[in-house]
Amino acid sequence: MAGFNHLFIPGPTNIPEQVRQAMNLPMEDMRSPRYPELTLPLFADVKKVFKNHDGRVFIYTSSGTGAWEAAMTNVLSSGDKLLMSRFGQFSHLWVDMAERLGFEVDCLDMEWGTGVPVELYAERLAADKAHKIKAVFVTHNETATGVTSDVAAVRAALDACGHPALLFVDGVSSIGSIDFRQDEWGVDCAVSGSQKGFMLPAGLGFLSVSQKALKAAKTARHMRCYFSFEDMIKTNDTGYFPYTPPTQLLHGLRAALDLIFEEGLENVFARHHHLANGVRAAVSAWGLKLCATEPKWHSDTVSAIRLPEGIDGVEVIKHAYRAYNTSLGSGLSKVAGKVFRIGHLGSLNEVMVLGALGAAEMTLLDCGVEIEAGSGVAAAINQFRSAAATAAAKAA
Amino acid sequence: MAGFNHLFIPGPTNIPEQVRQAMNLPMEDMRSPRYPELTLPLFADVKKVFKNHDGRVFIYTSSGTGAWEAAMTNVLSSGDKLLMSRFGQFSHLWVDMAERLGFEVDCLDMEWGTGVPVELYAERLAADKAHKIKAVFVTHNETATGVTSDVAAVRAALDACGHPALLFVDGVSSIGSIDFRQDEWGVDCAVSGSQKGFMLPAGLGFLSVSQKALKAAKTARHMRCYFSFEDMIKTNDTGYFPYTPPTQLLHGLRAALDLIFEEGLENVFARHHHLANGVRAAVSAWGLKLCATEPKWHSDTVSAIRLPEGIDGVEVIKHAYRAYNTSLGSGLSKVAGKVFRIGHLGSLNEVMVLGALGAAEMTLLDCGVEIEAGSGVAAAINQFRSAAATAAAKAA
Amino acid sequence: MAGFNHLFIPGPTNIPEQVRQAMNLPMEDMRSPRYPELTLPLFADVKKVFKNHDGRVFIYTSSGTGAWEAAMTNVLSSGDKLLMSRFGQFSHLWVDMAERLGFEVDCLDMEWGTGVPVELYAERLAADKAHKIKAVFVTHNETATGVTSDVAAVRAALDACGHPALLFVDGVSSIGSIDFRQDEWGVDCAVSGSQKGFMLPAGLGFLSVSQKALKAAKTARHMRCYFSFEDMIKTNDTGYFPYTPPTQLLHGLRAALDLIFEEGLENVFARHHHLANGVRAAVSAWGLKLCATEPKWHSDTVSAIRLPEGIDGVEVIKHAYRAYNTSLGSGLSKVAGKVFRIGHLGSLNEVMVLGALGAAEMTLLDCGVEIEAGSGVAAAINQFRSAAATAAAKAA
Amino acid sequence: MAGFNHLFIPGPTNIPEQVRQAMNLPMEDMRSPRYPELTLPLFADVKKVFKNHDGRVFIYTSSGTGAWEAAMTNVLSSGDKLLMSRFGQFSHLWVDMAERLGFEVDCLDMEWGTGVPVELYAERLAADKAHKIKAVFVTHNETATGVTSDVAAVRAALDACGHPALLFVDGVSSIGSIDFRQDEWGVDCAVSGSQKGFMLPAGLGFLSVSQKALKAAKTARHMRCYFSFEDMIKTNDTGYFPYTPPTQLLHGLRAALDLIFEEGLENVFARHHHLANGVRAAVSAWGLKLCATEPKWHSDTVSAIRLPEGIDGVEVIKHAYRAYNTSLGSGLSKVAGKVFRIGHLGSLNEVMVLGALGAAEMTLLDCGVEIEAGSGVAAAINQFRSAAATAAAKAA
Repeated sequence: MAGFNHLFIPGPTNIPEQVRQAMNLPMEDMRSPRYPELTLPLFADVKKVFKNHDGRVFIYTSSGTGAWEAAMTNVLSSGDKLLMSRFGQFSHLWVDMAERLGFEVDCLDMEWGTGVPVELYAERLAADKAHKIKAVFVTHNETATGVTSDVAAVRAALDACGHPALLFVDGVSSIGSIDFRQDEWGVDCAVSGSQKGFMLPAGLGFLSVSQKALKAAKTARHMRCYFSFEDMIKTNDTGYFPYTPPTQLLHGLRAALDLIFEEGLENVFARHHHLANGVRAAVSAWGLKLCATEPKWHSDTVSAIRLPEGIDGVEVIKHAYRAYNTSLGSGLSKVAGKVFRIGHLGSLNEVMVLGALGAAEMTLLDCGVEIEAGSGVAAAINQFRSAAATAAAKAA
Repeated sequence: MAGFNHLFIPGPTNIPEQVRQAMNLPMEDMRSPRYPELTLPLFADVKKVFKNHDGRVFIYTSSGTGAWEAAMTNVLSSGDKLLMSRFGQFSHLWVDMAERLGFEVDCLDMEWGTGVPVELYAERLAADKAHKIKAVFVTHNETATGVTSDVAAVRAALDACGHPALLFVDGVSSIGSIDFRQDEWGVDCAVSGSQKGFMLPAGLGFLSVSQKALKAAKTARHMRCYFSFEDMIKTNDTGYFPYTPPTQLLHGLRAALDLIFEEGLENVFARHHHLANGVRAAVSAWGLKLCATEPKWHSDTVSAIRLPEGIDGVEVIKHAYRAYNTSLGSGLSKVAGKVFRIGHLGSLNEVMVLGALGAAEMTLLDCGVEIEAGSGVAAAINQFRSAAATAAAKAA
Repeated sequence: MAGFNHLFIPGPTNIPEQVRQAMNLPMEDMRSPRYPELTLPLFADVKKVFKNHDGRVFIYTSSGTGAWEAAMTNVLSSGDKLLMSRFGQFSHLWVDMAERLGFEVDCLDMEWGTGVPVELYAERLAADKAHKIKAVFVTHNETATGVTSDVAAVRAALDACGHPALLFVDGVSSIGSIDFRQDEWGVDCAVSGSQKGFMLPAGLGFLSVSQKALKAAKTARHMRCYFSFEDMIKTNDTGYFPYTPPTQLLHGLRAALDLIFEEGLENVFARHHHLANGVRAAVSAWGLKLCATEPKWHSDTVSAIRLPEGIDGVEVIKHAYRAYNTSLGSGLSKVAGKVFRIGHLGSLNEVMVLGALGAAEMTLLDCGVEIEAGSGVAAAINQFRSAAATAAAKAA
Repeated sequence: MAGFNHLFIPGPTNIPEQVRQAMNLPMEDMRSPRYPELTLPLFADVKKVFKNHDGRVFIYTSSGTGAWEAAMTNVLSSGDKLLMSRFGQFSHLWVDMAERLGFEVDCLDMEWGTGVPVELYAERLAADKAHKIKAVFVTHNETATGVTSDVAAVRAALDACGHPALLFVDGVSSIGSIDFRQDEWGVDCAVSGSQKGFMLPAGLGFLSVSQKALKAAKTARHMRCYFSFEDMIKTNDTGYFPYTPPTQLLHGLRAALDLIFEEGLENVFARHHHLANGVRAAVSAWGLKLCATEPKWHSDTVSAIRLPEGIDGVEVIKHAYRAYNTSLGSGLSKVAGKVFRIGHLGSLNEVMVLGALGAAEMTLLDCGVEIEAGSGVAAAINQFRSAAATAAAKAA
């Protein structure tokens, strides 16, 4: 099929050219004297993206799922009680993992389209005078529904009642794209993956931990080996890994971090917000609704868009792929067939978003959704230009 | 700047991934026993793109301009009389080259926005009873104005009066993208370059010649060495080159030809026509005019769009580049500042075109052109979908 | 430093150009309708490399270490008794993992430089009338010492006493390079990684399992989630993965498998044996000794070479890297500083081996080892040419 | 065929990884406002490699041959008398070009294996009281025979008799690898190509000219267009080109220049001399002779080695390629079949040279040349180590 594939799924995201260049390389010795020149700055710089100054970061050869497992099996003990909530496929999978790994999960099931129920969390924590809850879990950005939750509020709830539970955050589809402040928000374990805001292929799982988590790990009783902190710490401290690391991705990570810092982390966040606003303007112009039930849940990295009754979302995705060489995100699990998703994170600019919206319009029209051709693109253009005008006015 | 650059100039065009992969390679010996396995099929397959069965093709390490010079200095003799016409920057440059290389040029200056004046050519040829005109020149696609000329009609004019002049065609921005038939149209020298329909970086100049041209070359008197047919023929016949060839581009050419034949040359032409129709629908919806004065001149590879009075085209191009990471084609020479161009050739699909139109809309609005946001994209979507519906109806 | 780095460690190995080209690509949707066109043939073809017809293969986003853990945590239950042996750093790490994952390990500690003690295994198995031993472990190729063990003999020992224990094989540095026959040898779990015989960057862990192992997995009690067979089977069967897979490496794997099958698996093995003979001839000519104590232990993928007393192996490795841009393998753990290793596996040919030997000679001389310059290279050349002559004579 | 191809021809040379990464890129607009940020520093930095401070450099889309033509057709007039000498295939081709381009050539035919006859040049110049000789030509490094000539001595000869002729130097296989000083030696036109010391694929022809040459070009009468200085100067001055430039190669050139300056030009020269000494030591140990008849002609970028009577050099080259995946340079023209060449220029280090020598030894032995296996490698190792020891002693 002629021309490029248009990738607008919420990960893997588009790889910047500099990152792609950096991964075009021969192999090298991961025990060479110079290897730490690559790795030590990576550990330091990934921490900056998490805004983790006091703790440390682990870079696993795994998907983000592996880093979830690393967090739980190193810092917690089998049978520990965990406070979790479920409102989408990825929060569901984390709960499922916790149960399979032998934890006692208090799971709050919420409507899909909403996020972490901070008030309910606050109640549970306040009621837990015996501090049986060992960890509280937040899915920062639920990729399946395009919902962002309020991590700082959960921290506030913990602090309000002086609860010592650890705070775990799944930031796979948020960290590096949306405001995240590990130290300030007192997050003990924050998980991410290479294929989202880090603009790399999948293959690296990041786990950024606080000193509190590191301390907890020393006495935690759970079986682990591949993901063990201990082996990593011993070797990482001198710039090496306990097993052969994926050198190609580490070079790509170097290039990706350079790009992030060159743009500036806060500018990256602002860009994501700006682009997401364009997508939301288009959705509104089409007369469609987001899966996220309220503006406070709106995600700046992915929008899940509800399809009208009678439209099969699976066909929408397939049609976009086959007819327009465009990859949109499908609905997963409970919302399978009911939504389609536009990923708007990573290496992205306004014109790419306009292309995505154009592709979505063609696809929706072909699939029988009654929208006005060009309406979404027009709304996004107006949104983008109006924001630019506001910014220019402010600067003046 | 985040995200990809959007390249919508009329060349260099976007490089397909397969071509890019094929050029990611170490160097090799251009005198190795296996080198002809690469080159001999290339010569044969480039000829297929030109629809040249009887003649041969030269692949020069040069731009298309070099292949122009190769055609003239090998096949013609200093002082030969040439019939040419000028209606844009590239037809101008060809005339300029002919004059500088010592030919006697009868140049018909036409309005920019029109093409080769077939009737005037017919008159000139009919009047030339003595056959002093040694060659007739056609700029198949004038890239500066987005005008396609009628090569077959020029051949008919030659035949009508039994004129033996050679027929030279500049197909740099047409061959491989627009219908071209060297044998059927009796074209003696057809020139192209790697960076347009061949979807490669610049660096290869193609010259496809008829047996008549090869014969003419044997007695032509003009100074040449680097571009000499003689040296090329001697070495090309066994799969080699008279000097070190650009192996990286030759491997890319292999991949590009594979893509073209996989899609099918006629399908490639149809796709270009389809995409160009979308762009023209958008231009019309914006209330703007093409540089090409009549539909018969419409180019399927590039549209030059006239800007309203008072709008500086140079600023339009710069703004698109700086604000939207989008490369549009600038106006050249006589139309500098008055037009902007959208290249729509090579590895391109509908969604890429929608992105280009979205970028153009944002740019035009920012620069003060009064168009309706989304109008061009809407028109293109409707054009694309209506063509698809027609095609589906025909197929049923 | 000018020129290429020379990589002669036992993994990661040199990446063939075709594999490198295949990994130079943009990201794509791992849930696209066409994704199974990539993945389903990969599962089938990786099985061919393992010579596993009846079972299935898991491709994990992990190092080989992760695949070790996958094998143990899916097929065995906590507390199971395992028969293992230790004679090098990698067999040691496997034992260590087993202990940390809560198994009861009967570990036979053997001299480093020898391999799996088949006779002792046979005794232990024969004595285990109650069949308490649930699995027997073989490190097929101990990368630290360059020792290959006899998997078929262990199978014979199991069969001789009709012991039902599962057979686990670590083939990280052997499979794809040395003869391995999963079905014929009745191997239940065979582990490998992408960065050795598969000629890829690190990042994929392969686990090839028999039907017997799959059956055992259904009742095994051990905690696992990331590496769970269940999730993989459910998604792999339709060509997908339970989490975002490393698409870049999967495309590289496709190219690597194509190369392996093009050369022919048996030819790949023969080539490794041939090249290893060259290295061993050189070692002998230098007057040095291999770590492997007897020819029957000689590894065709890596040679660990003992250094004379008083020579610090750590300095040898560093000097080769710094002075000659050459990466040799260092001694690990018990043999740290006492040996250096030459990896001779993956994408390798005779001239590359001569380069490695030349580099080793320069390094050894610089470090004070009394060898004759050129002696190793001469011995390898003679070995290579004499083998070629023998082969030619046979063919005639 | 497994493993890498070993490229030891005198160009194209091995491409450093950084250069290869830099060429792995999408296309871009060669008229963009930012394009001069790439090109202007390139012009400045290529001049540094030529040690040309006062003049300017032209970067043509052509092979080095094209740059030869550019030099002659821009700076000289048809019919001008030129003093040239011929002692190998490349000096022959330059003479041939001069004759075909209509110059009157006074060609001194010298024994192949010698270089420019400075004394004879001096005589001719002294005798030319009327200053009919307009230009004197020097093939700095005759690639076919591995002979380096003395440019400075030719300059001295010109100065000695106050002859105003222009000095033209073919530095295709020397500049960037061997000491060259355009200003100091008063060279008016110096030609090179991208695929030798510049470590790029073929495709760029460099022509570095003095102010004297630029002045001469203003009145020179010769036909030219593609290679015309005029068009280049007009566009280059603002960072652009008169036709679409090969952007991919220009980015590669940026990376190559960075590498050259990082190593230091003088260090690059010293490295070439060092590596060439190793090759020469090997040739001597084999009991073979160089084509270069005396040490003063020894080239540091390529060695042409005479084969014993009865050995067919064509077969030697083919055998190295087919049996050992090694590309050696063949004998050309007069020495076809009589010599083989080892290119030792560009991105090269000692271990690569040892590999080349090992490959050559295997090939020579297979082809019936009676050399001692390992002898050449041993001699090179001793040469390299002894030079290192001397350098260390000096530094101490």
